[in-house]
Amino acid sequence: MYTLEEIDRILENSARLQNISREPATLYDPLDYMMSIGGKRIRPKLCLLSYNLLSDDFQRPVIFPAMALEVFHEFTLIHDDIMDRSDTRRGCPTVYKKWNENVAILSGDVMSILAYKYLAYAPQAVLPKVLDLFSTTAMQVCEGQQYDMDYESLPFITREDYLGMIGLKTAVLLACSAKMGALIGGGSKEICDALYEFGYQLGIAFQITDDYLDTFGNEKVFGKKIGGDIVNNKKTWLLVECFRRATGEQKCQLEKLLQLGEDQREEKVEAVRDLYGVLGVKEAAASEILSYHKKAMDALATTGLPADRTQYLAQFAEEIIHREK
Amino acid sequence: MYTLEEIDRILENSARLQNISREPATLYDPLDYMMSIGGKRIRPKLCLLSYNLLSDDFQRPVIFPAMALEVFHEFTLIHDDIMDRSDTRRGCPTVYKKWNENVAILSGDVMSILAYKYLAYAPQAVLPKVLDLFSTTAMQVCEGQQYDMDYESLPFITREDYLGMIGLKTAVLLACSAKMGALIGGGSKEICDALYEFGYQLGIAFQITDDYLDTFGNEKVFGKKIGGDIVNNKKTWLLVECFRRATGEQKCQLEKLLQLGEDQREEKVEAVRDLYGVLGVKEAAASEILSYHKKAMDALATTGLPADRTQYLAQFAEEIIHREK
Repeated sequence: MYTLEEIDRILENSARLQNISREPATLYDPLDYMMSIGGKRIRPKLCLLSYNLLSDDFQRPVIFPAMALEVFHEFTLIHDDIMDRSDTRRGCPTVYKKWNENVAILSGDVMSILAYKYLAYAPQAVLPKVLDLFSTTAMQVCEGQQYDMDYESLPFITREDYLGMIGLKTAVLLACSAKMGALIGGGSKEICDALYEFGYQLGIAFQITDDYLDTFGNEKVFGKKIGGDIVNNKKTWLLVECFRRATGEQKCQLEKLLQLGEDQREEKVEAVRDLYGVLGVKEAAASEILSYHKKAMDALATTGLPADRTQYLAQFAEEIIHREK
Repeated sequence: MYTLEEIDRILENSARLQNISREPATLYDPLDYMMSIGGKRIRPKLCLLSYNLLSDDFQRPVIFPAMALEVFHEFTLIHDDIMDRSDTRRGCPTVYKKWNENVAILSGDVMSILAYKYLAYAPQAVLPKVLDLFSTTAMQVCEGQQYDMDYESLPFITREDYLGMIGLKTAVLLACSAKMGALIGGGSKEICDALYEFGYQLGIAFQITDDYLDTFGNEKVFGKKIGGDIVNNKKTWLLVECFRRATGEQKCQLEKLLQLGEDQREEKVEAVRDLYGVLGVKEAAASEILSYHKKAMDALATTGLPADRTQYLAQFAEEIIHREK
């Protein structure tokens, strides 16, 4: 079996998009740009780790489908950045900003197709299942993004709304990544389903961690300004929990804070963070992350595989929730 | 074998999108809307006609991939309408106009994934080839759209540029449609390649016919205002040929006409049509359409199949070039 570092190196070698035309440049340059500005590659990594529970044979039939997950993810980011009118991602200009909206639409489109080109390298025996899993997941991701946009205009949402939304927008793709590796590795239905569940619960933990870091992370390490979600009134786990715990008066206070504009950024972020502190939201988030992490680990255990085989996935799960950016 | 009318009826039964979620409505309503506002369904029709050269068995393994072609085509229209800022299509508001840009981006995205969901119903034995053909074609369509947008800012383009651009933007998808039916029908490599060539040449004829009708069609039958392409300075076959034939003085005249705005629409359309008449562009276009139609028919003949089998494809090709809208 390979270590996490060895899996990283396998991925680095694959990071340059292969087997594609490069003309016209206006269409394909943004693809190379997106693939080059970083990203933690967690989805292909999870796929390969999952595969590695069952096989050590790392060739195109697993490497390319793993890369399909990353290419698909990048496509969703390009289009999300248009819909959110975001100027930066990972500290760099978004494709939308660096080029223009039409370029972002079309190069995103070609990335979504390219994902399927890579996916098609999966072994023929499992290709129908791999395709079905991927397409179902991809449509769910779009549904999650739609709910996210629909919820923006609501004053608040429930915890169930939030979990449903991030389940679709984020968790299913990690679930798909984990299951896909097992499918390609020839895993039994039980193992494949267990890994799907592992990926899903880990995906929820991942998103809540994301929400947590945006408000309580270390700015130097995090790589972007703290508090962006608060400034944008994003429906994070923290905000949803805050509304859930707040008294009537605190709800009014929170609603007033959410009205503050970009010019009162510092004040808004500080005041909302304070309220989170007063209401125990920070600790509750940390506890919730650990709770979902445990669900993920419980699911991993149902594979019935010994700890010396599952250790790298366990290490990966630890890194997901204990990361600082 | 089935007649064209019978193939039409098979398609009508399939037109309502099946096997998909309907929530959230904001995401899926635009899909039903697009599928409902007409469209000639020529791509799935071509796929089924091609398949019918080899088999009479019309079940999901061919019906759903045929519908994938239509769903994909509709996706490209949704996104093209955003990029072109078009308000109407087929006499109805575009998704972009009826809802908004974000809805158009995301529902287009989900349509492109849905196409793959339908494609996956192809028989397992040919699925890798079907996928590869479709994905290659889909990327080429994006390339064609990119060239089309790049060419907008150029004062003029050559005939080779034009043919290359419509080859990618339009012809390859008809070629793919024809070949896909044959692949699913179990056709030999020779038959599949011959049908690809048939579809490609017919696709070129189809686009030049489109250009011709926009300027010289019968407005009542055509269903939209004549001259839209002239008003928008679209690089049609007619305009490209006009520049090719024009004297220096006529080029200057044409360039001045292209500067005229929406407020001088009538004058612009009439003057450019006159210039086309003077330079024999109208007749040349009609002749070119017949020439590509002949190439398509020659390709069809290389299948070696008897005329009583290929008659419906021949009839389809006739209808393509002799249509009035």
